[in-house]
Amino acid sequence: MILEQIKKENDIKKMEKEDLPLLAEEIRDFLIQKISTTGGHLASNLGVVELTMALHLSLDLPEDKIIWDVGHQSYTHKILTGRMDGFDNLRGFHGMSGFPKRNESDCDCFNTGHSSTSISAGLGLVKARDLNGTKETIVSVIGDGSLTGGMAYEALNNASDLETNFIIVLNDNNMSIAENVGGLSKYLNEIRTADGYQGLKEGVYNVLNKSGSSKIIDKIRRIKSGVKQLVIPGMFFEDMGITYLGPVNGHDIQAMLKVMKEAKRVKGPVLVHVLTEKGKGYEPAERHPARFHGADPFDIETGLPAKKKTASSYTDVFSTVMCKLGEREEKVVAITAAMPDGTGLKRFHNRYPERFFDVGIAEQHAVTFAAGLAAGGYKPIVAIYSSFLQRAYDQILHDVCIQNLPVVFAVDRAGLVGADGETHQGIFDLSYLSGIPGIQVLAPKNKWELSDMMKYAVASDGPVAVRYPRGEAYSGLKDFRAPIECGKSEWICEGGGIALIAVGSMVKTAAEVKDILDKSGLPCSIINVRFVKPFDTEMLKKAADEHDLLVTMEENVLSGGFGEHVMAYLENAGYSKKFLPIAIPDRYVEHGNVEALKKELGMDAESIVQRIFDKLG
Amino acid sequence: MILEQIKKENDIKKMEKEDLPLLAEEIRDFLIQKISTTGGHLASNLGVVELTMALHLSLDLPEDKIIWDVGHQSYTHKILTGRMDGFDNLRGFHGMSGFPKRNESDCDCFNTGHSSTSISAGLGLVKARDLNGTKETIVSVIGDGSLTGGMAYEALNNASDLETNFIIVLNDNNMSIAENVGGLSKYLNEIRTADGYQGLKEGVYNVLNKSGSSKIIDKIRRIKSGVKQLVIPGMFFEDMGITYLGPVNGHDIQAMLKVMKEAKRVKGPVLVHVLTEKGKGYEPAERHPARFHGADPFDIETGLPAKKKTASSYTDVFSTVMCKLGEREEKVVAITAAMPDGTGLKRFHNRYPERFFDVGIAEQHAVTFAAGLAAGGYKPIVAIYSSFLQRAYDQILHDVCIQNLPVVFAVDRAGLVGADGETHQGIFDLSYLSGIPGIQVLAPKNKWELSDMMKYAVASDGPVAVRYPRGEAYSGLKDFRAPIECGKSEWICEGGGIALIAVGSMVKTAAEVKDILDKSGLPCSIINVRFVKPFDTEMLKKAADEHDLLVTMEENVLSGGFGEHVMAYLENAGYSKKFLPIAIPDRYVEHGNVEALKKELGMDAESIVQRIFDKLG
Repeated sequence: MILEQIKKENDIKKMEKEDLPLLAEEIRDFLIQKISTTGGHLASNLGVVELTMALHLSLDLPEDKIIWDVGHQSYTHKILTGRMDGFDNLRGFHGMSGFPKRNESDCDCFNTGHSSTSISAGLGLVKARDLNGTKETIVSVIGDGSLTGGMAYEALNNASDLETNFIIVLNDNNMSIAENVGGLSKYLNEIRTADGYQGLKEGVYNVLNKSGSSKIIDKIRRIKSGVKQLVIPGMFFEDMGITYLGPVNGHDIQAMLKVMKEAKRVKGPVLVHVLTEKGKGYEPAERHPARFHGADPFDIETGLPAKKKTASSYTDVFSTVMCKLGEREEKVVAITAAMPDGTGLKRFHNRYPERFFDVGIAEQHAVTFAAGLAAGGYKPIVAIYSSFLQRAYDQILHDVCIQNLPVVFAVDRAGLVGADGETHQGIFDLSYLSGIPGIQVLAPKNKWELSDMMKYAVASDGPVAVRYPRGEAYSGLKDFRAPIECGKSEWICEGGGIALIAVGSMVKTAAEVKDILDKSGLPCSIINVRFVKPFDTEMLKKAADEHDLLVTMEENVLSGGFGEHVMAYLENAGYSKKFLPIAIPDRYVEHGNVEALKKELGMDAESIVQRIFDKLG
Repeated sequence: MILEQIKKENDIKKMEKEDLPLLAEEIRDFLIQKISTTGGHLASNLGVVELTMALHLSLDLPEDKIIWDVGHQSYTHKILTGRMDGFDNLRGFHGMSGFPKRNESDCDCFNTGHSSTSISAGLGLVKARDLNGTKETIVSVIGDGSLTGGMAYEALNNASDLETNFIIVLNDNNMSIAENVGGLSKYLNEIRTADGYQGLKEGVYNVLNKSGSSKIIDKIRRIKSGVKQLVIPGMFFEDMGITYLGPVNGHDIQAMLKVMKEAKRVKGPVLVHVLTEKGKGYEPAERHPARFHGADPFDIETGLPAKKKTASSYTDVFSTVMCKLGEREEKVVAITAAMPDGTGLKRFHNRYPERFFDVGIAEQHAVTFAAGLAAGGYKPIVAIYSSFLQRAYDQILHDVCIQNLPVVFAVDRAGLVGADGETHQGIFDLSYLSGIPGIQVLAPKNKWELSDMMKYAVASDGPVAVRYPRGEAYSGLKDFRAPIECGKSEWICEGGGIALIAVGSMVKTAAEVKDILDKSGLPCSIINVRFVKPFDTEMLKKAADEHDLLVTMEENVLSGGFGEHVMAYLENAGYSKKFLPIAIPDRYVEHGNVEALKKELGMDAESIVQRIFDKLG
């Protein structure tokens, strides 16, 4: 394998030009091999093998900088900077991250994870360079999907003002995770297919036809296609003051090297439009790029998952209840920010296409669009992952909740998410949501309760958030299905001196804790909180009156979370209780499987039992 | 006055066409008269008098809908919908809001306040209309400044997908509050001055010159200017799938009526580009639109403020310390999101232009741009008002704090802001910031402490937020100036059974409370918290050990705020204390002067004393 000659950054430059296609092939094989075992982002990485190689050949790392938007396409970059070994434990506990990390390599200059940040970060590095008076090249690589995020546009708008050298590589694969959407996507597509001029011409033609200026039409018609290409493609970016180069075939290394040379010569910001194919070189991924976006371990021959999925996930449950709600309530509409598959809304889309909206990677717009629909008399359900919903905090507060509009937030991936790591952990939503006046914040203990809560939320006349975790839906405690009532928690069992007051996913853990405590002869009560906001003060008083130790349990940071609300309430109400708040401590949580992370955080059943014993002394 | 014939919506339609210019004049006189007394947004409202009249003449309210972006330009709309009387107590306590409010009129279909939301909200109302199968016209009115906000672009991008009738009126006055910035602004300016084609032509010319195709150049040259106008203006929007009409003179009612008629005939989304002049018709405002953006009461003759400003504001103090820091620390750079005047960064800009960045109304980009600068070795200070910083919550967490980058957030207008009301109150920052791991959150008690804290923040090697209120800087307690130490509070005085533990602006209130309590023979301690995060547990223990009643005081919502952190900490530490948390209750706070609001919320000194007495029984 010539791939083995790559030990560190810039080693690729020692390779013969003729060997580069072979290197690309070996990188692809390596990625398919490794990701089939560990899981990870496959399709996006297969798409940028040559693009990454060309960047590494054009730049001097680590002096020059590459900022990878989102960052899940940085695997080839990791290989070319000497991190091949890391793929054995990719995204595993204490293993290599699936995203760029400054603490992994000098060649990772900025951590990413969420979409559309790379142009802003790149501009910051650019201005730092200018103030330093140095000359390094700074390149932000952003996908066409990420370009639908508003902050990318804010940065583009700012770039031309700064009037300094900066290269933006637009990695255009015509996809977000799913099909890309929106006007800009259509525009890029027109450039791809070179039909852009056609539409323009027709527009002019129609107008001129009315005015009878057929001579001018003839002239425009006769302008050679080369000129059309000069005039038309990229005008959108040129209008913003950014030089446009392209489109160029992103799988042709020599073409990429040529355009990069040109880009480095341009004064001011330049956008290089690179066309790539998601999943390139692995047929199953080419055919199903969305499925191979973030893949579980799979069989290379067939492309099928190595482990057959047996139990249904919370997302599946949400998917099903949404179809039911769609049927029952004609005012129900559903909104996703570029995640029709991930959120489970695909089925709703298939059944009720006119009531489904994929707005692109645009969480802010998604929420205020929902507010508009609600003001127009509809019942929007906005399904966004917990960590991505952070981006719409202001819109939730300012556009939905101040007006008390009945928007339902389906907050998926709430709690620890595992392999994607610190940027994706959904561990802040209970804090940032429960500070907002007027919103109800719910978390289901099991699959049936998610279903019941969604129905409750849709029947409410103000904003409601329902947060539920990634992965398998808990199917225990089936018999506990009292109707959902605003602000009312649910007693699962009563007895003994310990009260386990658990939010959502932690009810399952509480049941496990109880099993262990029972064996130790320590009976306990379990309370399913249901409502983090408004919370059940009656239950709290009873729990405090009847128990010696109160244990709150939540997959959220302690600060501003449920446990703090409870402790503050009890202190204010004059209680002095032994208290054990189980929550994420005040730090970020890295990647790794959720079980390992919970153990490390002292949040698995065994650790909690130990902490209870410690507390009881 | 013919203005008096306007009693309710649609009354304007009864007027003679010839009388409309007179009506416009009377509206302007009325606005100048009233705002000179109450204060309020003047320049933006004077700019849209004819535009608003034309919309009201073109539409049937309340069936048709107008969404006013930001909303501070809705005064003429309020007049034309029968709310002239409200101007007597505009923005006053229990008076008429300065923004559109659904609870004021059926003709206000969506509340606004923050920038760039109107296209999203409008699209929501549009889709609700389509699903209802009705035909009303929906118009979002957005300024060119607001168009620099990313969510406006997210919505534009989505609009073309939805393929339905929707009118966006671009109110282009070539200004944000200050001069507008960014590539798009330049682009719009090119359309204004009709030079757009020129630049394009030169570009093509240069390329073709190299290739020697002079014949083609000649042909392009001969294309008539009418065609150029058809091809070039608005291509940016056309590229996104939005029909462009304009530019049209926004002070010519008949021209506006004509273009609105055309816009209503267009299938799909259409953008009407309207040129207006901020401050139109009042010379001082035309000359100084930024000064008359949000104006205090002024003398109509001279345009000068009615009351001369005597004391310096926190913003002034910040402005001064920034100049000092700029001189002392060459790595200090400053960033504003379209608020060089409001944040006080103008002076820094004048002195260190190369280290100052106005990124436009783009809080998300501002923060991640700062993160990039910090990753490049600089010390960025990002000055953003508390309620606008909500929009960058994810960027603070994801781009700055996870990477522990030394970005300083100067959080102005933190606490109650008064006349702008619920959308602008800065009462959530202590909650949304203190949930974020790794950030330090500080609040100064007086002007000197703001200065000291800024110096401390710049010397720190991780993220720091310093929050301070709108208005006059407190100049009491001058002698208390112990060095700022991470996580250490400051004892102002010790004694008695009551501890007043106060955050930032509330230290002044605590001093007032102490004065009253002293007279009642009830001595108390005052603690200046300084650090809301990390907070001083040593101080808390001492305060709890030595006092009977603990009173936390903060201008922030209770939920997730300082008081809750303290109560939770003490409960968990086994304390049982009498506790009185003074904070904003779990609801929104409307407009009105800050003193009246504090009284209503029980947060002024007298109310707090009463609450202390109540608590002591």
